[in-house]
Amino acid sequence: MVPSEIRALFAMVARPEVVSLAGGAPYVSALPLDAVGEMIGGLVAGKGAEVLQYGSAQGDEVLREHICEVMSLEGVQASADDVVVTVGAQQALDLITKIFVDPGDVILAEAPSYVGALGTFAAYQADVVHVPLDEAGLIPSALRETLAHLRAQGRRVKFLYTVPTFQNPAGVTLTTARRAQVLEICAEYDVLVVEDNPYGLLGFDGEPMRALRADDAERVIYLGSFSKTIASGLRVGWVLAPHAVRAKLVLAAESAILCPSNFSQLAVREYLATQPWREQIKDFRELYRSRRDAMLESLDQLMPDGCSWTRPAGGFFVWLTLPEGLDSKAMAPRAIAERVAYVPGTGFYADGTGQRHMRLSYCFPEPHRIREGVRRLAGVVEQEIRLRDTFGDTGSAASTGVQTPGPDVV
Amino acid sequence: MVPSEIRALFAMVARPEVVSLAGGAPYVSALPLDAVGEMIGGLVAGKGAEVLQYGSAQGDEVLREHICEVMSLEGVQASADDVVVTVGAQQALDLITKIFVDPGDVILAEAPSYVGALGTFAAYQADVVHVPLDEAGLIPSALRETLAHLRAQGRRVKFLYTVPTFQNPAGVTLTTARRAQVLEICAEYDVLVVEDNPYGLLGFDGEPMRALRADDAERVIYLGSFSKTIASGLRVGWVLAPHAVRAKLVLAAESAILCPSNFSQLAVREYLATQPWREQIKDFRELYRSRRDAMLESLDQLMPDGCSWTRPAGGFFVWLTLPEGLDSKAMAPRAIAERVAYVPGTGFYADGTGQRHMRLSYCFPEPHRIREGVRRLAGVVEQEIRLRDTFGDTGSAASTGVQTPGPDVV
Repeated sequence: MVPSEIRALFAMVARPEVVSLAGGAPYVSALPLDAVGEMIGGLVAGKGAEVLQYGSAQGDEVLREHICEVMSLEGVQASADDVVVTVGAQQALDLITKIFVDPGDVILAEAPSYVGALGTFAAYQADVVHVPLDEAGLIPSALRETLAHLRAQGRRVKFLYTVPTFQNPAGVTLTTARRAQVLEICAEYDVLVVEDNPYGLLGFDGEPMRALRADDAERVIYLGSFSKTIASGLRVGWVLAPHAVRAKLVLAAESAILCPSNFSQLAVREYLATQPWREQIKDFRELYRSRRDAMLESLDQLMPDGCSWTRPAGGFFVWLTLPEGLDSKAMAPRAIAERVAYVPGTGFYADGTGQRHMRLSYCFPEPHRIREGVRRLAGVVEQEIRLRDTFGDTGSAASTGVQTPGPDVV
Repeated sequence: MVPSEIRALFAMVARPEVVSLAGGAPYVSALPLDAVGEMIGGLVAGKGAEVLQYGSAQGDEVLREHICEVMSLEGVQASADDVVVTVGAQQALDLITKIFVDPGDVILAEAPSYVGALGTFAAYQADVVHVPLDEAGLIPSALRETLAHLRAQGRRVKFLYTVPTFQNPAGVTLTTARRAQVLEICAEYDVLVVEDNPYGLLGFDGEPMRALRADDAERVIYLGSFSKTIASGLRVGWVLAPHAVRAKLVLAAESAILCPSNFSQLAVREYLATQPWREQIKDFRELYRSRRDAMLESLDQLMPDGCSWTRPAGGFFVWLTLPEGLDSKAMAPRAIAERVAYVPGTGFYADGTGQRHMRLSYCFPEPHRIREGVRRLAGVVEQEIRLRDTFGDTGSAASTGVQTPGPDVV
């Protein structure tokens, strides 16, 4: 597609009659907006001289202490001094890639992987090598094989990028047993791990998973975000890094933006200090759980034979695989004509594959809309299957590779 | 100085008994904080679903229209489609440098130039070549000579970086006649101009200067900011660029931060739509004018012979030149011991010069504090002159080159 076609497509997705299962936008309307508004208004009126002023490049110190408290829910022990506040975790990704990656260096990433990370890695001309995952997350034996292969080739691997918990886009979670194996393998090959964990507190069952960072403070760089647990529009994320890396991150952040917004940072600080944030996260979990249920129930009932999908235990996304011979990218305009949107799988691979996959998100639409969206999608897939059976493969030409993500596919 | 010494120095500058003429922080307490707090509280309560959500990578469209209205005060005719909202103008600088500059490319910058820009240029391994300025701004004949010299050497000049109005750090303004000459010379040598204009609306006399961009829409990339006209803590700046550059900027911004904060952007949008922002800028101008007057009067009365300084007609800064044989960087710790702080001139040069200069800011301290600060500074300079007369030059070892700016020296 050329840019004008993409724009036309996005314009159609934005129409109210289209059910979008494409976006990764959190349902911020579930926040107590009156209370949050009152809190922020009071903050500006009462502490405006600080809230509206430049801050430090590393980020507000009290906020960084709160961040350590939040990470402790996942077993992470950290000092506020090793945290850098960023403009969403996306900026952390950008700064880390800037610091570590020279053109041609290898970054390992799950197949599929987060589209926004792939975009950033491409911007720095990294060579992304995918490692497959399954329902239990990244496959350790595949990781080991890939590292051995790259070592034999004399390739330089800068880090493993992973979203271990409620992965974007696959919705799967790395098991506890595999976490230990992944850390062990990365230690053996002396490879850094970049753990991107925006969804970790949004699990539907039991306690939060223990972060990779909780078991290796020297090898793991941890990226966190308030985009999904408070509000994405604040653009407050962070990176927790070993001390020597943290110093470089602060210099890079300073050069890139001078300092993060005190207005956003102190809103988060005040929210964490004065609002029932743990209960709010519980409310978000219940909300997303009921939407996940609506999606899985509809998929179970309506999708034709030959389709399969993941069953996420948290987060925002289901990863769907189409029957052989179908192409999610070629199908996208036809789906939108039927008033349902998703993200084609190709965006989540750096190697041009992913045609048989798509990401479906349940985070934003109401449950009845999710059901209607899946009903429409099932109809489109059925029609594609009939076309395939009549005319053969429905595929488009080869993928054009990594797309820019766009905030719509966060 | 090693980092720990710098930290110790900054810790001392932060003490209340020290008069800091170092920082470039605007006096945000002059805003009607109750009204702004109420406005923002109402905005979050009433439009939280938009304010707290992801936005587009280019920035909010209505805000971009307001930005065009603000720029029209300086004669700029622009379409909102060519504006990209950034995390302060610093991010615009970073993105432009990322897009245009390969290691070793030349960037022309005034001597002295904004420390934060020099830091970013250094991060991309640009080779900064300085062009001198005087009381009337950048010197056109020197610009022409430099370009001719570089052309003869076969060097590739990517752009001229200039703060034409109420320059940081020199406080001088490019005259109307010179503006035309600078544009003409850059056209002759086919060099882009990056016009950084955070202070343009903060002139103390008459109407705003006409921006360079107003007279050349194809060659000039314009950077603007609300940091000094509304509030620095919001981190909302922008870049206005020719169409082809704008497209690249949006992609680079998306890769760097996904999208700017809707929370900050819509606060600015609402402020511009509902608050008397023109009157507020007028209030800021009056405030800064009285502080400029306090500084110039005190300098006139108190500084010893052999010192000279600029007389800014707007903005935040006075640029002071010490008598021969004195060194502002070597003197800084002694000044702080006397409870007055400034920024040594060396930070504003990429070539290790600037020892005889310092930047004095009058934007933040109250007038009586400014007078007290200048009184202390005059005492320190007098003592240095006596030292010089007794022992010879007071200079430190050679400069270590560009310092990281730190939000304190914006």
